[in-house]
Amino acid sequence: MRAASVDRIVAAALEEDAPWGDITSAALIPATATASADLVAREDGVFSGAQVFDAAFGLTDAAIAVTWHVHDGERFTGGDVLASVKGPARAVLTAERIGLNFVQRMSGIATLTAEYVARVAGTGARIADTRKTTPGLRLFERHAVRSGGGHNHRYSLSDAVMAKDNHLAVLTAGGLGVTEALREAIARLPHTMPVEVEVDRLDQIEPVLAAGLDIIMLDNFSLDDLRRGVEQVAGRVTVEASGGVNLDTVCAIAQTGVDVISVGALTHSARALDLGLDVRLDLPAAR
Amino acid sequence: MRAASVDRIVAAALEEDAPWGDITSAALIPATATASADLVAREDGVFSGAQVFDAAFGLTDAAIAVTWHVHDGERFTGGDVLASVKGPARAVLTAERIGLNFVQRMSGIATLTAEYVARVAGTGARIADTRKTTPGLRLFERHAVRSGGGHNHRYSLSDAVMAKDNHLAVLTAGGLGVTEALREAIARLPHTMPVEVEVDRLDQIEPVLAAGLDIIMLDNFSLDDLRRGVEQVAGRVTVEASGGVNLDTVCAIAQTGVDVISVGALTHSARALDLGLDVRLDLPAAR
Amino acid sequence: MRAASVDRIVAAALEEDAPWGDITSAALIPATATASADLVAREDGVFSGAQVFDAAFGLTDAAIAVTWHVHDGERFTGGDVLASVKGPARAVLTAERIGLNFVQRMSGIATLTAEYVARVAGTGARIADTRKTTPGLRLFERHAVRSGGGHNHRYSLSDAVMAKDNHLAVLTAGGLGVTEALREAIARLPHTMPVEVEVDRLDQIEPVLAAGLDIIMLDNFSLDDLRRGVEQVAGRVTVEASGGVNLDTVCAIAQTGVDVISVGALTHSARALDLGLDVRLDLPAAR
Amino acid sequence: MRAASVDRIVAAALEEDAPWGDITSAALIPATATASADLVAREDGVFSGAQVFDAAFGLTDAAIAVTWHVHDGERFTGGDVLASVKGPARAVLTAERIGLNFVQRMSGIATLTAEYVARVAGTGARIADTRKTTPGLRLFERHAVRSGGGHNHRYSLSDAVMAKDNHLAVLTAGGLGVTEALREAIARLPHTMPVEVEVDRLDQIEPVLAAGLDIIMLDNFSLDDLRRGVEQVAGRVTVEASGGVNLDTVCAIAQTGVDVISVGALTHSARALDLGLDVRLDLPAAR
Amino acid sequence: MRAASVDRIVAAALEEDAPWGDITSAALIPATATASADLVAREDGVFSGAQVFDAAFGLTDAAIAVTWHVHDGERFTGGDVLASVKGPARAVLTAERIGLNFVQRMSGIATLTAEYVARVAGTGARIADTRKTTPGLRLFERHAVRSGGGHNHRYSLSDAVMAKDNHLAVLTAGGLGVTEALREAIARLPHTMPVEVEVDRLDQIEPVLAAGLDIIMLDNFSLDDLRRGVEQVAGRVTVEASGGVNLDTVCAIAQTGVDVISVGALTHSARALDLGLDVRLDLPAAR
Amino acid sequence: MRAASVDRIVAAALEEDAPWGDITSAALIPATATASADLVAREDGVFSGAQVFDAAFGLTDAAIAVTWHVHDGERFTGGDVLASVKGPARAVLTAERIGLNFVQRMSGIATLTAEYVARVAGTGARIADTRKTTPGLRLFERHAVRSGGGHNHRYSLSDAVMAKDNHLAVLTAGGLGVTEALREAIARLPHTMPVEVEVDRLDQIEPVLAAGLDIIMLDNFSLDDLRRGVEQVAGRVTVEASGGVNLDTVCAIAQTGVDVISVGALTHSARALDLGLDVRLDLPAAR
Repeated sequence: MRAASVDRIVAAALEEDAPWGDITSAALIPATATASADLVAREDGVFSGAQVFDAAFGLTDAAIAVTWHVHDGERFTGGDVLASVKGPARAVLTAERIGLNFVQRMSGIATLTAEYVARVAGTGARIADTRKTTPGLRLFERHAVRSGGGHNHRYSLSDAVMAKDNHLAVLTAGGLGVTEALREAIARLPHTMPVEVEVDRLDQIEPVLAAGLDIIMLDNFSLDDLRRGVEQVAGRVTVEASGGVNLDTVCAIAQTGVDVISVGALTHSARALDLGLDVRLDLPAAR
Repeated sequence: MRAASVDRIVAAALEEDAPWGDITSAALIPATATASADLVAREDGVFSGAQVFDAAFGLTDAAIAVTWHVHDGERFTGGDVLASVKGPARAVLTAERIGLNFVQRMSGIATLTAEYVARVAGTGARIADTRKTTPGLRLFERHAVRSGGGHNHRYSLSDAVMAKDNHLAVLTAGGLGVTEALREAIARLPHTMPVEVEVDRLDQIEPVLAAGLDIIMLDNFSLDDLRRGVEQVAGRVTVEASGGVNLDTVCAIAQTGVDVISVGALTHSARALDLGLDVRLDLPAAR
Repeated sequence: MRAASVDRIVAAALEEDAPWGDITSAALIPATATASADLVAREDGVFSGAQVFDAAFGLTDAAIAVTWHVHDGERFTGGDVLASVKGPARAVLTAERIGLNFVQRMSGIATLTAEYVARVAGTGARIADTRKTTPGLRLFERHAVRSGGGHNHRYSLSDAVMAKDNHLAVLTAGGLGVTEALREAIARLPHTMPVEVEVDRLDQIEPVLAAGLDIIMLDNFSLDDLRRGVEQVAGRVTVEASGGVNLDTVCAIAQTGVDVISVGALTHSARALDLGLDVRLDLPAAR
Repeated sequence: MRAASVDRIVAAALEEDAPWGDITSAALIPATATASADLVAREDGVFSGAQVFDAAFGLTDAAIAVTWHVHDGERFTGGDVLASVKGPARAVLTAERIGLNFVQRMSGIATLTAEYVARVAGTGARIADTRKTTPGLRLFERHAVRSGGGHNHRYSLSDAVMAKDNHLAVLTAGGLGVTEALREAIARLPHTMPVEVEVDRLDQIEPVLAAGLDIIMLDNFSLDDLRRGVEQVAGRVTVEASGGVNLDTVCAIAQTGVDVISVGALTHSARALDLGLDVRLDLPAAR
Repeated sequence: MRAASVDRIVAAALEEDAPWGDITSAALIPATATASADLVAREDGVFSGAQVFDAAFGLTDAAIAVTWHVHDGERFTGGDVLASVKGPARAVLTAERIGLNFVQRMSGIATLTAEYVARVAGTGARIADTRKTTPGLRLFERHAVRSGGGHNHRYSLSDAVMAKDNHLAVLTAGGLGVTEALREAIARLPHTMPVEVEVDRLDQIEPVLAAGLDIIMLDNFSLDDLRRGVEQVAGRVTVEASGGVNLDTVCAIAQTGVDVISVGALTHSARALDLGLDVRLDLPAAR
Repeated sequence: MRAASVDRIVAAALEEDAPWGDITSAALIPATATASADLVAREDGVFSGAQVFDAAFGLTDAAIAVTWHVHDGERFTGGDVLASVKGPARAVLTAERIGLNFVQRMSGIATLTAEYVARVAGTGARIADTRKTTPGLRLFERHAVRSGGGHNHRYSLSDAVMAKDNHLAVLTAGGLGVTEALREAIARLPHTMPVEVEVDRLDQIEPVLAAGLDIIMLDNFSLDDLRRGVEQVAGRVTVEASGGVNLDTVCAIAQTGVDVISVGALTHSARALDLGLDVRLDLPAAR
């Protein structure tokens, strides 16, 4: 992630959390006190967010140093020390909550993603995210999905076409068949623009394939229908399954032979992971 | 919430989601098509976020009108139509995901908050949020807690003092007793600044109370100790319980007589509620 | 284009052009004077930029009304009145330069694009732009290309892969063949990400096609080699020609059978069109 | 140029060009690969934009070093290496287009300006730019004009008065003569505000001069009339010529004795210069 | 003042004053209550800031209406009602302080300026401000000076040259005389750039005048020396006096014949005027 | 103060003061010249603003070094050198006015605050500021009050409740007594929110105290009534006096036994202190 983009998001979070500074630290902690702190895992997981954690402390006080014992994408076990922080005590305590907040969320997403990825191991299917990210944090959450071994879907409404039932209804309202109507629309698109069409039934597959797509999404298909859909597509385009995906169902879905399974839950329902910061203040000698 | 603040956050989310516009709508939907849409609940809950939902559509196209059938803080049942949206089809489809994303999150928080509030009904305890909010969205999430009948805690590090074990350790490192050290620190604070101190053990209560606090936080106390703590404080200051709070434990905690129970999970672990947008395109007549 | 995005760019231009206001108008024009103005073409062309022109006047004074006699994408002839402007004289004169500046640039791009498009009429080739846009104005310049009948290429480095010689050199440095190396890299990409590879010689075509691309760019090929390249690809992927494209060569390039011709000059070397604003002040009666 | 201002403009351009990062480099180039690159002139010209080029690379990755072999305002010949760039390969390739885009534009302006300046060598006339700059890039384009040996005109509507026919028409509508009306208006201006008046005919010169101007602009005068105008003004104020200025006419205009010739084309019609970046990747050893 | 510029400054002030809203109004005032308020003068003065006051209320709630009984630049007497405000009570109370703050400051500047202007009545001298304005509020304070009948000096370091002793010392360090050195420097400047030179002694006047200035500043001259300086300049350029100017000295300074007296105190030491808002709540009927 | 917040405010001030750079320095001072400068006190006072002064120079040119001989909160005497500045001459002269402007204002506030604090020495009263700060500069002015030994009041409308007569009038309009109405309202507030109520008469004290406040403000009370009010409150809550406070009255007010005296004049009417920058240019040797 570009440093400037990370800094912009983290700086806004710090400002939100302390518009007039951290009154508690200013009043209770001497300006000269220093602190050491360990970022400790309180449960198992997959890490994500080192760059963001660095920014939370660095933007609060450039004198804080963070040493990493884990990298994004690596697994850790409850009790592991993930990073060591050292610097002015006031700043360490001020930045603590924001730093933790980001890595808890990002590692939660990475960990959940890794669970999905593990469930489909050995099948050819990949796990992909969706646009159901936290507003303002898509950059970070997309990175976290990659940390967990998942793949990103389109980044925004601007970089891939995804035609759903509503679009197809309008397209064909004028009387054209779906194949012809889609083909006309695709001809108007930038030639670099990937086209994905979502279908709800097996009989919709041929007409849309005939229009020249890149990806077909089989939405809320039964396992049997997914299997039939994959057979029908027969490798002509990428097949994406969506709908009804959870940790219990994902393996069976993958075994139908689909190429991609998109999972809104990765970013939309991931639980913040329990990571804590154990702070040790370097106490000044008794007066 | 001030319109300018809401607009700033929502506009950034829209820009994030479509930096170059919604290519799919531009290519597949005629500029003149209009759409009607219903915001429909797919499960029961408590609503929050009408102002934010309005902004998502209004900032996309000022010609979209939203009519509300529910207000923030009201309960709804799965199947209820919460709002009706009407306007240019391209814009309705472009704004759909962002609008939903916000109300799903906010209503998720409101609904979870309302569950906590219901569990403590009849006790004198109030449910409060924490600083564990989504970076950049604190304004909305705090509002959602209020929609659910919860109360807000301090907004930021700048508007209340919260002294934890680390702060107390530093304060007393010079040899002063905790009472005297805290009293000195409090004397340096703005006279409008509320002071809360977190304690871990019953024997810490008297020394910190003697310093002249506003709120004492009993952190991770057993139910018995909470009860003893409440007795010991005897109404001199507000008593807040935190730690180990979940839907199963919150009622017993409330029955110990504490005034406030702060629950990080309200914002930190709330599940996005399942709300959907049923869109009906007003199809142009066949050509 | 989303109103908020247009307004942001235009407002910054107005601020740049008059940080402390338009001193001349303030000193010489009575606050109550009104003006009518015609946007007049001083040469033939294709129009683009009505929305931006509206914003330049509207953001200066909401009391200015603009009536359009042409729409984006329409041809006009020298002497045509393209739009009529009416409002407070001070504001009309203040916004004049910025309003003109944008439509001159955008119409210049639209007109040049239309010339390229006309030259390839009857062939199957489309004319596409590149990333060689004016920093900060890509949104407007991409729109202008569409006004001229051209197509957009990828919007940014984030929405399509474009592998050039440098990338291929690195990819194969480890000893892998280009086909295998590219295939591995493509497997790591989001499944929605289109992949284009640029080749310099005919013998590079088969190895990269074998990796599974979406688009192949034949860069700086002779007409003969373009023809051979198109034959070789035989419709398996989109063929894009680039390099050495100008108004004299573009037709012959199109006749080789390529699908897309990308032309940096569309945005990079378009001449601002000569459009002027004829202002008529409504003079107050003699004192 | 102030570093903060340069950085703000360049950072926005980088964000525009890669909102989610450079996917191609991330997928195809190892994070540890480094690159060397030469900024090479592919035609003769005058350079401008070193500070901006530095910013494009530095803001992408602070580890990139740029060494300059030319300074702003110096001439170079096709084939010259203007600068050497060294750093992480991903970042070098990511910043390439933006860095080039700026120096191509700025050097194009500097080169065109230098041509105009050369044509008027030996006369007393100076070449000046106008407000016809690219929206958002005035700071850079003004700098480029200076690199080419040209001079800047007023920066904005806020720092000099320029009265044109419309202003004069309003001023005198109340029945006052132009001299008296202008004198009254000038008396209302800040005493530091330079006043320029544009006239279309010789007989307008005396009345406006009598009002006490700083600069008179002779707009679209024939060479003969320019000569007569210069004689008439006789050194009382600065004489600026504008209108109908191009490389063929500028010398004769200068020889009429005018002090300043303002040329919209400097910024408005300058061609981007052909500068390229020759990148050499430091390939990792074969695996 | 351009609406967008005014709004930007006022919106930031409102955000600064209530990042999470006005808790008092939200808790104590019913959402449906309305209020009427009078902006009342508690002392005599000259008004400035109607546009800014409007923005403070309008940006808080568009439903607030402000009716003006005074215009910028008009005198009022203690007790006068300057404006009437009507709208939702919460919003009126929330915006009150910010609205007052701006008009108190601006009217303070206008009033002090008017006092200076009155003292020099009948002389030919004008009163001008300086760059000693409040950071961030120069636009408003310059406007307030004009409301008081004063004139603006240069707006910023970018729109006029002001050479002081330090500049002259450097200029002549190479051995050139001041006349020649200054003339060389002036020749490098944009032809629209006014040049002012500050001198400390009478004998410096001729050498700098010979270089071709627009304005000479006589800094900290005695009244006698001012008189001699004016005689010596003899109308060749504008003469500005500065230093030691206050309400007691300004008349005598003006009588020396200087053209301009610049007074840092106008913006730098103006007292906020005592204006108050008398709010009448429209109380809901008893329940 | 957080560096990012300070930098944001100072950078905006620099941009306001030189949107196109400092033309005078660029034209008259060689790029290689260096300067030394002393920040000198021209009158006695208490210093505030070192961090801001550093930012003004550092953001103009990172090569400028500032060495401090005084710290925020320390007294100095006219003639004292407060800081030494060394760096590129152009940048030193460019940043001079902005740097001075901030420290003059901040030290003016600190000095006035210290005078108030000195007057109440030996009483138990503290001097507090109000929300009457300069829009956009509250962060700096609050810091300056602390430098002068004063205390901050609530930072904004969002961090403490302050109920005035208007609020109480609305509250009781429904027929409830003030005690009960206030108590109800307080019960709706966040438990961390301090509550202050302003009263105008002695008989209002008991009813509002009974509602459970934190602070009572006795507004515009006579000295006798203040004394009676303090007696009546008898230590139950903090007593704040406001209204009619100036340097002549503050001591008597303090002697009535109030805890806090809030003084709008601290920020609202403080005079900028006379601090100057004595610049010595390191002149290049004669050519």
